[in-house]
Amino acid sequence: MRILGIDPGSHATGYGVIEREGSLLRHVAHGTLRPRGARVELRLHQLYRLLSEVVAHHEPDAAAVERVFVAQSPRSALVLGQARGVVLAALGSLALPVTEYAPAEVKQAVTGSGRADKRQVALMVRRLLGLAHLDEGDAADALAAAIGHAQAGALRALGAASPRRRPRARTGLAALRVRRAR
Amino acid sequence: MRILGIDPGSHATGYGVIEREGSLLRHVAHGTLRPRGARVELRLHQLYRLLSEVVAHHEPDAAAVERVFVAQSPRSALVLGQARGVVLAALGSLALPVTEYAPAEVKQAVTGSGRADKRQVALMVRRLLGLAHLDEGDAADALAAAIGHAQAGALRALGAASPRRRPRARTGLAALRVRRAR
Repeated sequence: MRILGIDPGSHATGYGVIEREGSLLRHVAHGTLRPRGARVELRLHQLYRLLSEVVAHHEPDAAAVERVFVAQSPRSALVLGQARGVVLAALGSLALPVTEYAPAEVKQAVTGSGRADKRQVALMVRRLLGLAHLDEGDAADALAAAIGHAQAGALRALGAASPRRRPRARTGLAALRVRRAR
Repeated sequence: MRILGIDPGSHATGYGVIEREGSLLRHVAHGTLRPRGARVELRLHQLYRLLSEVVAHHEPDAAAVERVFVAQSPRSALVLGQARGVVLAALGSLALPVTEYAPAEVKQAVTGSGRADKRQVALMVRRLLGLAHLDEGDAADALAAAIGHAQAGALRALGAASPRRRPRARTGLAALRVRRAR
């Protein structure tokens, strides 16, 4: 099962691709899409095109999108919504299942704490996927979303609980460690 | 010069196509895109596809997008932003000039009042374009945006003023009447 994680942002959108086979996780790819262009419609179209290319290249079976943080001004929510809309539209072309996760859910899944900072998230993603190096930021957050989805899927497969109602104790580091690819 | 006006919404997106030749306006087409689908990513992808079809069919030279109203909750701004992002991304594929207009600017352009209601806007659009019938709503608002853009373009061509700084007296009904197609 190949999972595409995405962290949409108004300036940069991170993506990460992992594979889950049973309890094993494997890193496939990650990167950050930074559309360039003088005008917002050109940047948004480029985001659509770049993400469509990522999807066509990696052929994921599912996508996990980090839900954007909306406790801000309506103005910044609108700008974030634009990038998120384009990301969802690009994913919608494939009819693959798209699941959204709150930032706190993703952090909880990879670090055991919903209030972990970006450095902690990147550190744990690096460890869980056995990467030699990983910068904190959008791509690390996108990989974290993919890992969180893999974990939720593994729990679903075990019949442990629905992904939205799984017990807290199972969503933390302890649950993930056994799934790390070796 | 063929102008595509768009009024993006979270449930329905209106579009209207008009032609301007000198001071004459001609109605070409209008409609409302109502994407269906159980999931948001499917609806957003459908919006992208439907709008791309409208654009491919009518081949506009310019687009005028009604700026969405953001003085709401961050949550609703996010949802509106998604539709707007998809609309802008679809327009961005063509590299045609896209101009955004605030709702009050559009209302001012077609009715002479920035606080006109939807019924007034539809009535004036109907008169200005010589239509036998036009429902109030998204498509009428989209045609109004296109008319406002045509008017701004005509003023630019006259060297009267920049579209953002044109004197109020010229943006109302009096300025438009002379441009109505006969």
